[in-house]
Amino acid sequence: MTLMNVSDLGEFGLIERLAEAVGAAPPQELIVGIGDDAAAWRVGEQVLLATTDTLVEGVHFRPEWAPWRELGWKLLAVSVSDIAAMGGEPQFALVTLALPSDTDVGAVDELYVGLQECAAEYGVTVAGGDLVRAPQAVLTVALLGRAESREGGEPLLLRRDGARAGHVIAVTGTLGDSAAGLRRLQKGAAPDDPLARAHLRPRPPLRTARRAVHLGVPCGIDVSDGLLQDLGHICRTSGLGADIRAEAVPLSPELRSAYPPEALALACAGGEDYQMLFVGPSDTVRLLAGSCDDRLVVIGEMTDGPARQPRLLDAAGGEVSLAVTGWDHLRGR
Amino acid sequence: MTLMNVSDLGEFGLIERLAEAVGAAPPQELIVGIGDDAAAWRVGEQVLLATTDTLVEGVHFRPEWAPWRELGWKLLAVSVSDIAAMGGEPQFALVTLALPSDTDVGAVDELYVGLQECAAEYGVTVAGGDLVRAPQAVLTVALLGRAESREGGEPLLLRRDGARAGHVIAVTGTLGDSAAGLRRLQKGAAPDDPLARAHLRPRPPLRTARRAVHLGVPCGIDVSDGLLQDLGHICRTSGLGADIRAEAVPLSPELRSAYPPEALALACAGGEDYQMLFVGPSDTVRLLAGSCDDRLVVIGEMTDGPARQPRLLDAAGGEVSLAVTGWDHLRGR
Repeated sequence: MTLMNVSDLGEFGLIERLAEAVGAAPPQELIVGIGDDAAAWRVGEQVLLATTDTLVEGVHFRPEWAPWRELGWKLLAVSVSDIAAMGGEPQFALVTLALPSDTDVGAVDELYVGLQECAAEYGVTVAGGDLVRAPQAVLTVALLGRAESREGGEPLLLRRDGARAGHVIAVTGTLGDSAAGLRRLQKGAAPDDPLARAHLRPRPPLRTARRAVHLGVPCGIDVSDGLLQDLGHICRTSGLGADIRAEAVPLSPELRSAYPPEALALACAGGEDYQMLFVGPSDTVRLLAGSCDDRLVVIGEMTDGPARQPRLLDAAGGEVSLAVTGWDHLRGR
Repeated sequence: MTLMNVSDLGEFGLIERLAEAVGAAPPQELIVGIGDDAAAWRVGEQVLLATTDTLVEGVHFRPEWAPWRELGWKLLAVSVSDIAAMGGEPQFALVTLALPSDTDVGAVDELYVGLQECAAEYGVTVAGGDLVRAPQAVLTVALLGRAESREGGEPLLLRRDGARAGHVIAVTGTLGDSAAGLRRLQKGAAPDDPLARAHLRPRPPLRTARRAVHLGVPCGIDVSDGLLQDLGHICRTSGLGADIRAEAVPLSPELRSAYPPEALALACAGGEDYQMLFVGPSDTVRLLAGSCDDRLVVIGEMTDGPARQPRLLDAAGGEVSLAVTGWDHLRGR
């Protein structure tokens, strides 16, 4: 008998195992099941989307670093990011709060202020949820949304399996700020420090993602676990490699000045940026870059190589190696 | 400054507070928001439903009393019960597992076996979810479903505000078995003890609930927190009282023989039965009782009295008082 615990298997190993356990015969309405940013299924002429995210006290947040109001914003924003990553529009949220009995009601009020700020920003209505007691706070959002279809019914979605060799890879905004912000919060930075703010109030580029899907960008993912790891999901799902030019990875001036030697590593592996990564034909991505409100830069391209994982290359074409590779939610590293 | 914690306010106090915080201007598509068994909104000609439920280790379950496989069944069944309580059909589930790193993979496999058994029984497809690390297991399901509409678009839903004075109140199956089963499990009963089984493998009467909505029963709720408490939600939402005849409350022979003096209290306040309570015109409810697969008995009626809460009456019309009144998830009593 082999004993194995879930951290041996890791988050992605366990997801594959569970997908096999439930996978047999999905109904015809299901367009996208386990393994993408959100599930998608048909309802009449329309396409519905659903995703869920959880923040655990002591694992994903500590109240001493993240004020409850910021936590409320982030709780919803991470799910908005998943809906954006499908090219969809978020609509209704179910909010589950598992809280210790002695939680101050004022803290919950603050949480709801932040949640409602994010809901208003992204056009979301909180439509229900669940309240239970727990030894420590566990906050879960299920977010429902919709995507559009072309005439004829083909759903307009950004999918992880939509990449082709030669497609360019582009990202919105700057990367690494959130991971740097967490470090600063742990050292006592105020929530309005610009890097801390990137960590506490991520702003998923929803409009740009929706514009991408309308322009015909076929593939996308949100950068939640780190650029290389998230791009790795696209490589594996699409059966391709990816080359990233290290000098093209967008870094903010704040990140460069706060952590000069580690800025690139934080940008490539830090996680929680909630920016969008798009993969598509060069012309289409350029059209998007020229017509969206977010900064969008091409950082590399998909390759036909046998790698099935991203390579980070320096200006001379040599491979850059980083100490860390991304976040695994079950291993916690 | 008043300091108050969430257990002072209680689950239902906090739900009201949160509903106010998010309530301002719901979009036109939303049919039912916070405060019913599930949210409901329009998508084209169709009506979508969404609900979420959470089980917390040490609060809602202990692995030593509930085998992981049974826990998997129950995790999904409680949400199926919420969709049934709207008169809808469950379709897709998102499953969030927050687990300690040292959780045995075999336990998770068992959880999925039970979850999949329940999914197969009720026609549900697991379409996604989230895996995170937590100090103790917190298991959350978000369940999406659909309801039908009449020609003309009026949604066919069982609603908490659908009761009228003179409507009869009926319940499926027997009540109190689950609470009795929990007691027996705590004293070492095997999972196949009939009362223990009622606790571990609740079987929401989905087909009967769907039949009810088709026949025109206007109001329903699932019995999850205890008969009197759940009926109390209908009283408050509908602005009515309710009289229940104590001798009509359906008790199983197993419950009567296991806990003779407390059988009625367990049935009225025990919780976790996941049976259905229907409220509607006498003729309609009788038609349902005569044509469904579940046992359905009339136990009382809605009244125009000022009570706004249910009264439990003995054969002489005197009020029966019980020591316990139902389950509050934040107070844990």
